[in-house]
Amino acid sequence: MHGENWQKELTLRPIGVVRSSLKAPLKRGVADAANLQEQGEEIRKQMRQIEGLVSELIVAPELAALLDGIEGFSHIVVLYWPHLLEEQKRKLVHVHPMGLQEFPETGIFATRSPARPNPVLVSTVELLGRAGNVLRVKGLEAVDGSPIIDIKPYAGVYPEIKEPRFPEWLRFVFTLR
Amino acid sequence: MHGENWQKELTLRPIGVVRSSLKAPLKRGVADAANLQEQGEEIRKQMRQIEGLVSELIVAPELAALLDGIEGFSHIVVLYWPHLLEEQKRKLVHVHPMGLQEFPETGIFATRSPARPNPVLVSTVELLGRAGNVLRVKGLEAVDGSPIIDIKPYAGVYPEIKEPRFPEWLRFVFTLR
Repeated sequence: MHGENWQKELTLRPIGVVRSSLKAPLKRGVADAANLQEQGEEIRKQMRQIEGLVSELIVAPELAALLDGIEGFSHIVVLYWPHLLEEQKRKLVHVHPMGLQEFPETGIFATRSPARPNPVLVSTVELLGRAGNVLRVKGLEAVDGSPIIDIKPYAGVYPEIKEPRFPEWLRFVFTLR
Repeated sequence: MHGENWQKELTLRPIGVVRSSLKAPLKRGVADAANLQEQGEEIRKQMRQIEGLVSELIVAPELAALLDGIEGFSHIVVLYWPHLLEEQKRKLVHVHPMGLQEFPETGIFATRSPARPNPVLVSTVELLGRAGNVLRVKGLEAVDGSPIIDIKPYAGVYPEIKEPRFPEWLRFVFTLR
């Protein structure tokens, strides 16, 4: 399989840490046919909560200069590590996406579940401001204390995706927005 | 700074490898006032080349089941590692974005440069098909042999970003499209 060199382990050194009022991951319940609407309401409530959440990205002071020019962007992409995820959850294969038992079990790579072999989570958020090594952002579902792996500017998606296709379970989630 | 626990190194074990006809990173020239248009042409040519490029994501066979359900998506997000990047380039602080000397030096976190402290590159690409543990994708600027760190479905950006703001250098790049 294309040589074995690609299998070598890679090492990340966090560049900073998230400071947030969110102290634990949001719990997603288990939704079956009987309580799908009720569970949907819960998901909707959580989405609203995260949308309005303001948190801080504390970048290591010695890396502050790497942020220069980021003020020119309204949105940034944050890569972070869900440090409270139990190690054995990195071995999951299938899940019901968002706990929605109504929908078929799905491979981890076809979901946004934080439980994945390499739990590097990617989130696009609004940049409210910068003060030295600290960014204030809105809409980040990262728990307080999450190590930050990278910060990138949001530059849109190119080429533009005109008619993305999604599976049924995600279309259901969209109806909750 | 919020305890020191976040500084702990994190380990990634690649989940697969990119197979591509792109054997070396695209070279970006240096553009100054004298050759800005010419250099712009070169950037445009490279963008066209990547747009049409079809490559394969070879997922480790023992992880193939984690792809189940990904066929429901038209686009996916690929996290990969630029393995040909020289280690010392992870220490860069400022660059002229895309070699455009006309524009001010910018901090690495405000650019999409592959040279960054944790070079985890994120790319949204079109999913053409799946055969077992192999995905065929279009539009991936990853060099042949790049270790794949994660695969996620593309689920749009929510909440929708209505009027993103970009700095002058990126608006110049947009004119090249």
